[in-house]
Amino acid sequence: MLAPFRPRRYSAITSPLRTITVRDLLQLQDAPKQPLDVQGRVRSFRAMKNASFLDLEDGSSKNALKVVISHHGRPNPVTLKTGQSVAVRDAMWKWTPDRQQAFELACQPTDVQVIGDVTDEYPLQKKYVSLKHLRQWPLWKHRTQYLGGLLRFRSHIEATLTQILTQEGIYKVPPPVVTSGDCEGAGELFHVEANSLRASQRKYFGTNAYLTVSAQMHLEVIALALGRVWALTPCFRAEESDTSRHLSEFWMLEAELCFVQDVTQLTGFVQKLIQELARTLLQRQDELLPGMVPQEGAESRETVLARWQSLIEHPWHTVTYTEAIQVLQRQHDLSPFVHAPQWGAALQSEHEKWLAGAHFGGPVFVTDYPRECKAFYMRLNDDKKTFACFDLLFPEMGEVMGGSIREERYDALLREMTSRNMNIAELDWYLQLRRQGSAPHGGFGLGMERLISWLYGNHNVRDAIGFYRSATSTIEL
Amino acid sequence: MLAPFRPRRYSAITSPLRTITVRDLLQLQDAPKQPLDVQGRVRSFRAMKNASFLDLEDGSSKNALKVVISHHGRPNPVTLKTGQSVAVRDAMWKWTPDRQQAFELACQPTDVQVIGDVTDEYPLQKKYVSLKHLRQWPLWKHRTQYLGGLLRFRSHIEATLTQILTQEGIYKVPPPVVTSGDCEGAGELFHVEANSLRASQRKYFGTNAYLTVSAQMHLEVIALALGRVWALTPCFRAEESDTSRHLSEFWMLEAELCFVQDVTQLTGFVQKLIQELARTLLQRQDELLPGMVPQEGAESRETVLARWQSLIEHPWHTVTYTEAIQVLQRQHDLSPFVHAPQWGAALQSEHEKWLAGAHFGGPVFVTDYPRECKAFYMRLNDDKKTFACFDLLFPEMGEVMGGSIREERYDALLREMTSRNMNIAELDWYLQLRRQGSAPHGGFGLGMERLISWLYGNHNVRDAIGFYRSATSTIEL
Repeated sequence: MLAPFRPRRYSAITSPLRTITVRDLLQLQDAPKQPLDVQGRVRSFRAMKNASFLDLEDGSSKNALKVVISHHGRPNPVTLKTGQSVAVRDAMWKWTPDRQQAFELACQPTDVQVIGDVTDEYPLQKKYVSLKHLRQWPLWKHRTQYLGGLLRFRSHIEATLTQILTQEGIYKVPPPVVTSGDCEGAGELFHVEANSLRASQRKYFGTNAYLTVSAQMHLEVIALALGRVWALTPCFRAEESDTSRHLSEFWMLEAELCFVQDVTQLTGFVQKLIQELARTLLQRQDELLPGMVPQEGAESRETVLARWQSLIEHPWHTVTYTEAIQVLQRQHDLSPFVHAPQWGAALQSEHEKWLAGAHFGGPVFVTDYPRECKAFYMRLNDDKKTFACFDLLFPEMGEVMGGSIREERYDALLREMTSRNMNIAELDWYLQLRRQGSAPHGGFGLGMERLISWLYGNHNVRDAIGFYRSATSTIEL
Repeated sequence: MLAPFRPRRYSAITSPLRTITVRDLLQLQDAPKQPLDVQGRVRSFRAMKNASFLDLEDGSSKNALKVVISHHGRPNPVTLKTGQSVAVRDAMWKWTPDRQQAFELACQPTDVQVIGDVTDEYPLQKKYVSLKHLRQWPLWKHRTQYLGGLLRFRSHIEATLTQILTQEGIYKVPPPVVTSGDCEGAGELFHVEANSLRASQRKYFGTNAYLTVSAQMHLEVIALALGRVWALTPCFRAEESDTSRHLSEFWMLEAELCFVQDVTQLTGFVQKLIQELARTLLQRQDELLPGMVPQEGAESRETVLARWQSLIEHPWHTVTYTEAIQVLQRQHDLSPFVHAPQWGAALQSEHEKWLAGAHFGGPVFVTDYPRECKAFYMRLNDDKKTFACFDLLFPEMGEVMGGSIREERYDALLREMTSRNMNIAELDWYLQLRRQGSAPHGGFGLGMERLISWLYGNHNVRDAIGFYRSATSTIEL
């Protein structure tokens, strides 16, 4: 359904409206006969006797373009530094079939012009820099092959998920970011007020306002109107914990689907969605696999490729929470976890990782959690003890996604809220939805940074977003 | 490039993972031979002597599905109310070539089951409700043909823009929502603090934190790494004004493109983008044109269709600000505006609407505004008086988009910031970008709700978003 990438002809990439990128040229199937102009950044530069060799990158691809500047024994007037922006004019295409890159661009020293210099403090020199260091350089880190590639990877993921969901006839809708309630009782909220009114008694919105922790409830309103909807929005949690899996500001892909009645319909849908995504990763692996993988905190290209393949080729597992607790308890007897697995308690990260890792060796859906482990809005199963819900666990990462059938029955929802001593008046609107043309429905929330990090073989969600916000970080920019 | 819609075969829409929607059935090209299950909401119900007629909608389409319930003279045990959720089981496809809908579904009374009742208070009865009224019913308004259609329209716009920009090789990236500075000096900021710390002296982020007013500056950081990037993010302005064109929370599509040096490259790009979008609207007009257009505050289907056509068929105009002031002043002499047009002052909404409306009769780019009208980061033209920038004006709506070449020269940017008495230390990071591999670049910001409203022929941006936030509204949900 998604067309694999095809090389394009030169005539297809030239337009008065756009400059030619390195990616364009690397993907060309025919040699342009006319002289070319191309711009970018110096990845590396080597001056030899008769010629100098410039590797030019522009962020459009992890690969650089080889440019050969001939000076035939005369001293080369061009000396380039890593990180400089340069413009190359009137370069000629030259086939080099016996090299790794099947062509190079050839030009004269006068064809190369520095358009943006670097100072001696430019941090991205040739020597190796760890991810930990790079994270402290938000201005420059995206210029590295690995982290720049991670953002290009993210772009592919977002565009592809948009395409798949659109082809499925599911509508993308915009839920609000500023909301009035702490609906999930998650607690760790950010408060919002107009800056000019902060010290006064007035409230801009007439009530306390917060940043959303999940778009789910608003999506339910729209799902009961449009049928099947999804959203991609920033969500916010004022976490005090500082881990490689949590961000204060993160993006969630959430969906709500009407007339879904069974958790297996949701898990089947999710599996199909991620498998279709994985197929596009394999089709474009040359482009999408990470380049220059760091020595720590990142998986090798081979491991990443095997991960993508396994999503399609290996079975995905489903167990109920109750079954999961049983196998965890057996394992605990053999080799104890830090936290003893116990029916009725949440699964710890160590449990999740063991289930998806050592035990199942792949993605696993855990379904039907006990009521006391999950939020009030999930649909009560006939056993009256568990909810019709699931978490999706990935090896090494743990939970990437959670979902459920929502309680669409007014009486059952009211009973659950009452038993939890919730503020009924505040959520009256949510209850009212169950009184006027209610319908069975369910949905899920997918943590984008966790999915992206895991698929790219990266170990820290902070790298999967442009500029991370977390408890211990300052907002430098 | 974008494939027009094609009807699908029945085998293509059936899957264990999804229920069949009304839209699926209305688009079928072959009649399913097996009995069908379909669910939805009662749009209308009429009981006759031998049969009852149900118009079933499910939000997947503006159109309803005709279901005929036969009861052959016996009293009909089924009485349905507008807004109820119902399930129809084992219905048979029956061709009705001489009717408006080429087929209907036929079933027995026992095949129809109410799965979600309505109370007598359900507000969406058959009688006409104005948009002004509907806006007060955020729980139900999306169930109307017109406003539900507006969200489906928005979904098409977002998916299509994503597709076009991806095909252009421009990467979608996630700029932050929580930021540290009021970089544009716009002033009307929302302040953010962890709720648990609000009353204390501590700050969650270690500094004052605000909701972003524009992703531009962060996009510039990433553009100088990846080359050509875009983002679709919520932006926030604590406006005190209450108009049909302003929201406190709105979505912007912003792009930054490296190696763009001339405003005409930006305006050409923007025109091409919107024209490609308009082509898809025309291809899918049956689906996308509004249904049940309200009597006030909305354009007719004919006007909307003509608007889409004119975007492609009629020329787009470009004038400099200086030329615009000249024609405005001539007009002012003939028929005075409220505000006299004057070189050096911002264009008023009345000026913008006259230019794009009575004068040019179509989209118009106004370029090269005086320095004092625009933000500090724009590139100074050689005349030292104007910036290399543009606004895009639409008839009736005024400004929908603004963009510029950014000042990529360190000295020129520092000079501009100093002359405006800006806090240089706070924006040092932005200046540093100009010292390390700077490159010519430019970009634009497109107000999604304005574009969507205008294209749909709707007069109030509050309808183009799921749940609006504005100065005078409370956050009901």
